[in-house]
Amino acid sequence: MLTLYFAPGSCALASLIALEESGLAYEHRRLILANGDQRQPDYLAINPKGRVPALVTDRGVITENIAIQAYLAQIAPAAKLAPLDDPFEFAQMQAFNSYIASTVHINHSHKARGARWTDDAAAIETMKAKVPQTMAESFALLEDKMLRGPWVMGDQYTVADGYLFTMAKWLPGDNVDRSQFAKVSAHYQRMLERPAVQKALAIEEG
Amino acid sequence: MLTLYFAPGSCALASLIALEESGLAYEHRRLILANGDQRQPDYLAINPKGRVPALVTDRGVITENIAIQAYLAQIAPAAKLAPLDDPFEFAQMQAFNSYIASTVHINHSHKARGARWTDDAAAIETMKAKVPQTMAESFALLEDKMLRGPWVMGDQYTVADGYLFTMAKWLPGDNVDRSQFAKVSAHYQRMLERPAVQKALAIEEG
Repeated sequence: MLTLYFAPGSCALASLIALEESGLAYEHRRLILANGDQRQPDYLAINPKGRVPALVTDRGVITENIAIQAYLAQIAPAAKLAPLDDPFEFAQMQAFNSYIASTVHINHSHKARGARWTDDAAAIETMKAKVPQTMAESFALLEDKMLRGPWVMGDQYTVADGYLFTMAKWLPGDNVDRSQFAKVSAHYQRMLERPAVQKALAIEEG
Repeated sequence: MLTLYFAPGSCALASLIALEESGLAYEHRRLILANGDQRQPDYLAINPKGRVPALVTDRGVITENIAIQAYLAQIAPAAKLAPLDDPFEFAQMQAFNSYIASTVHINHSHKARGARWTDDAAAIETMKAKVPQTMAESFALLEDKMLRGPWVMGDQYTVADGYLFTMAKWLPGDNVDRSQFAKVSAHYQRMLERPAVQKALAIEEG
């Protein structure tokens, strides 16, 4: 059995979507980050990083969206969630996901998680102020150079699509107008039409 | 043919080590970040992100260490640089690499790259001040919960080892005493004994 620990509004939505798309049986457990659920001892025993997502499997726990996404694609090959038989294309998908994890998500994190990197309250405010710029710059690159269309990897839907969708969902809250990015906006609407995405969003709503 | 674009002192050392360990034929091109080589038009045509590493292949360019590392492991299976036949273990390796890319490297980046996330000079100084703390916290987690030993994944050397080594190499410059982390320090010394690591370091030195 697979059990996903997630939190509403977090990047774990990407793994939730991947699970729904995979067709695999799974359960989910909801953490509320504002309540500090992720820092409780019972959760730290599952993921000592105190972050979401965490996927509990029969063999142990997998953390980090990139790892969970590739894992789900590999154990549910019939769902065709990654170009598993082509190392170059698999690498392209992973490069996309890694850019999301280590650049786009990090830019976003400077809005509400600035205390990770400074103890100074005034500095945290200056970080918040720059988020609309850094997120817009990241999405300009995604729009112009990375999103092939109609899906991230072209004709084949992959786990990368759920990850892009999760970031694009954050744009209004980051004071970035999503509509300035035509391909990203069309992708976002296309995602909303997928039953698996609708199911994942309903689970997130609770 | 494979060509790696790297920069001395950067995280691209991880991909350089992986190439040396793979036994694959490759060429390398050196960028000097302090000179802004990564923002020159000829390089932006290769990697519009203006970052290293970038691996040029016959089919196109692969960016991001995580993607390059898994790719090299997959196209050079005889080198056994990843648990390719076990999706769960592959996911564990990827989770390790993702933690390096999106947490450890990001903590380090707040020392010299703070301008990515704020325009305020005073704020940048407060970020620098916290780097020894965040890097030490990350390495405490790596030491206590993630590095299995003798290699990251246990008995089998993988591409994750080169990535950990690259971060551990930065610790003195980040004002973190590496010797407080016994397993990490032993791993670092073990890495220095590998011919592929020695070769990669010599290439980096130039």
